[in-house]
Amino acid sequence: MRETHLPEARLRAEKGRTVLQWRQYADACEKADWMEIRIQKAKPPAPDLRKMMVPLGPVAVFGASNFPFAYSTAGGDTACAFAAGCPVVLKAHPAHPETSLQVAELIQQALKKHDCPASLFIHLHDPSFELSRLLVTHPLLKAVGFTGSLTGGRQLFNWAAERPEPIPVFAEMGSINPVFLLPGKLAASATETAQLLAASITLGTGQFCTNPGLMIGIRGEELYDFMFTLKEEIDKVNEAPMLHEGISSAYTHKKNVALAETGMETLAIGRVNASLAMPKGLPEIALVSAKKFINSEVLKEEVFGPYSLLVECDNEEEMYQVARSLHGQLTASVFGTDEEIKNAVNLMDAIQQICGRFILNGVPTGVEVSRAMQHGGPYPASTDSRFTSVGADGIKRFARPVCYQNWPDALLPDELKESNPLGLWRLEE
Amino acid sequence: MRETHLPEARLRAEKGRTVLQWRQYADACEKADWMEIRIQKAKPPAPDLRKMMVPLGPVAVFGASNFPFAYSTAGGDTACAFAAGCPVVLKAHPAHPETSLQVAELIQQALKKHDCPASLFIHLHDPSFELSRLLVTHPLLKAVGFTGSLTGGRQLFNWAAERPEPIPVFAEMGSINPVFLLPGKLAASATETAQLLAASITLGTGQFCTNPGLMIGIRGEELYDFMFTLKEEIDKVNEAPMLHEGISSAYTHKKNVALAETGMETLAIGRVNASLAMPKGLPEIALVSAKKFINSEVLKEEVFGPYSLLVECDNEEEMYQVARSLHGQLTASVFGTDEEIKNAVNLMDAIQQICGRFILNGVPTGVEVSRAMQHGGPYPASTDSRFTSVGADGIKRFARPVCYQNWPDALLPDELKESNPLGLWRLEE
Repeated sequence: MRETHLPEARLRAEKGRTVLQWRQYADACEKADWMEIRIQKAKPPAPDLRKMMVPLGPVAVFGASNFPFAYSTAGGDTACAFAAGCPVVLKAHPAHPETSLQVAELIQQALKKHDCPASLFIHLHDPSFELSRLLVTHPLLKAVGFTGSLTGGRQLFNWAAERPEPIPVFAEMGSINPVFLLPGKLAASATETAQLLAASITLGTGQFCTNPGLMIGIRGEELYDFMFTLKEEIDKVNEAPMLHEGISSAYTHKKNVALAETGMETLAIGRVNASLAMPKGLPEIALVSAKKFINSEVLKEEVFGPYSLLVECDNEEEMYQVARSLHGQLTASVFGTDEEIKNAVNLMDAIQQICGRFILNGVPTGVEVSRAMQHGGPYPASTDSRFTSVGADGIKRFARPVCYQNWPDALLPDELKESNPLGLWRLEE
Repeated sequence: MRETHLPEARLRAEKGRTVLQWRQYADACEKADWMEIRIQKAKPPAPDLRKMMVPLGPVAVFGASNFPFAYSTAGGDTACAFAAGCPVVLKAHPAHPETSLQVAELIQQALKKHDCPASLFIHLHDPSFELSRLLVTHPLLKAVGFTGSLTGGRQLFNWAAERPEPIPVFAEMGSINPVFLLPGKLAASATETAQLLAASITLGTGQFCTNPGLMIGIRGEELYDFMFTLKEEIDKVNEAPMLHEGISSAYTHKKNVALAETGMETLAIGRVNASLAMPKGLPEIALVSAKKFINSEVLKEEVFGPYSLLVECDNEEEMYQVARSLHGQLTASVFGTDEEIKNAVNLMDAIQQICGRFILNGVPTGVEVSRAMQHGGPYPASTDSRFTSVGADGIKRFARPVCYQNWPDALLPDELKESNPLGLWRLEE
């Protein structure tokens, strides 16, 4: 089954990642730190108070287009919802319905094996807009997980907010993942930095939500050195397959819209491969001045694929203005020497305010599955910057606290019993 | 200054509570468990990842009508926002503008004493609808805290959701705090239970968001015994001052609307005190059948004051149906023997699903300021059931995680440095 043009290496990586997620969430369930258990024993007249997380209720998960495994049917959202104790209604992504169905069957087998009701996981195929609306507005649904476009995510958010009983929507949407290039660092390693970025921009034909779609540098010799190597590197990258028709045509379209903005120049372009069948994507790097960039909303939109825009600033003050003009991002990266970073107080502060993950001297692609990971960021990177969609803390999205007051030990849930029979992590005061 | 008719005892209690909150939030800041620090040291090729909470940004806090101190100018929302590192724009409640101004001046003095900029706290007086809208829709505002009516809270929520960049609104709104009375418990202690509830219903002239506005019992001798004592107790409670005109007239109006529903009877009524000046509130208990209650939306609305409705069920199944018909609540209480609670599996499950705090054999009034407290609940008790507005976990409402990737130790925020110079609680993996 090859509905999507997933190269073998990425297929393996994605499957491995999916398994890793389930293992980490299972481990998190054993420790239950996500449950935020707080115990305050009775101190008369104050009563015994014991708080823990309980499931929010049934969760609608929308399969992602670009990750048929790790962010879809048995992806992070489904694993987190199950870990929190919530049933899942999964809407298969129309780009890989057969893959989704096969994965759903595996989930059903696993439920059966563990004597869980089959209704804990419902798999829906209908790609219609109407089904999405019905799901999000259904009174029994209590939360929504989504990875995809800004338009799609915002629509789900709006429907959920307009309900008689509003529910949370965790939509991970667009991000251009800005990379700030400070001159001292480029003076020391323009070539290596350009090589790193060229590889990150074209990794997986650019089909990662953490793809570095924006680079910001300060006009000068170091930046020209960087540009020279970047061009050299990109020029030799071949046009490559993309996952499916939808992603490929959206890439070309969005790229052309961006390139049509005034002041845009092409800096580098990959090797056309006419013999390669569609869907495919041709790497491209554009160049624009900071002034043009700051005033263009179009240039701040994600172009999903192997594309990046280099913004040339006159000085660090202008770089700061670029940072201030950006919307929320999943990640932001800075290449700088320790000295440069220490001195750029305002710039670093402005960058921290717009991102969920803040990287020094590294590229944003590569998202570790870890409790220390934050995958999410201020709007529009995600609809709720207070939560992550990668790592065990993602479980918290689908749970809410309940405080048990004055319960006799025998009647308390096991999680809260005095003897801690499940061996959970608890905070006792 | 006595803008509001706050009896001395309550004034002292409320001031004490306000101080207690600030102390607990200060303590929470020292430990910083709310920061959810997660450290994963570099395991090449995996990079060093360190996650902590950072402030969301400026927070708008709306002073509450019923708590001039503990839920207003220097109340829990302000303390939590400051603890998270967020500036506060406070909108004074029109019922106590002078109190609010004096408290605001104390905050300004404290800021000055600690060399903090005065702009960390802005105090606004304008009671207009338009100011509320401007605040919630202001692009620099990043979150909203509110305690008040469902209509008011939902309006703020809607404005926030319709923004180009939606922001979270933490509105604590109506709750009728149902109390389920199981027959075995009443058979053993109908009198004590009725005395407890009568005191809870009339405490502070019923002006607490955790006031028990609904009791549900099963027709029978035990319930009649309970009703007899409840009537006896309420009949001797005097009509008493309420905080201000607005609360008092809303109480009388909402009570009359409820009493006008078909099938409603008055079970007990307090002692009229004609010589007492307005604003005041007369205690009253009404009685209705489960069938009428289940089908009435009006009877499920909060009547803020010393009023409660007793719902008579034919049997436990009908009591379960009542529980299923309820909206989200701050609290729910059950009076039952251990045996009864163990056996009422479906009922207990249905109750847990609608409440934030679940009390056994106790009344809901009295909200401890503690990490183990949950003050919040499924909609419409609050707009976001995943957070509390009482206790140090309330700080989490105003913060979001940022992951620092690949930072040299010297450049990391102190909270994340390898030597843990601030001595914070951290999870290292």
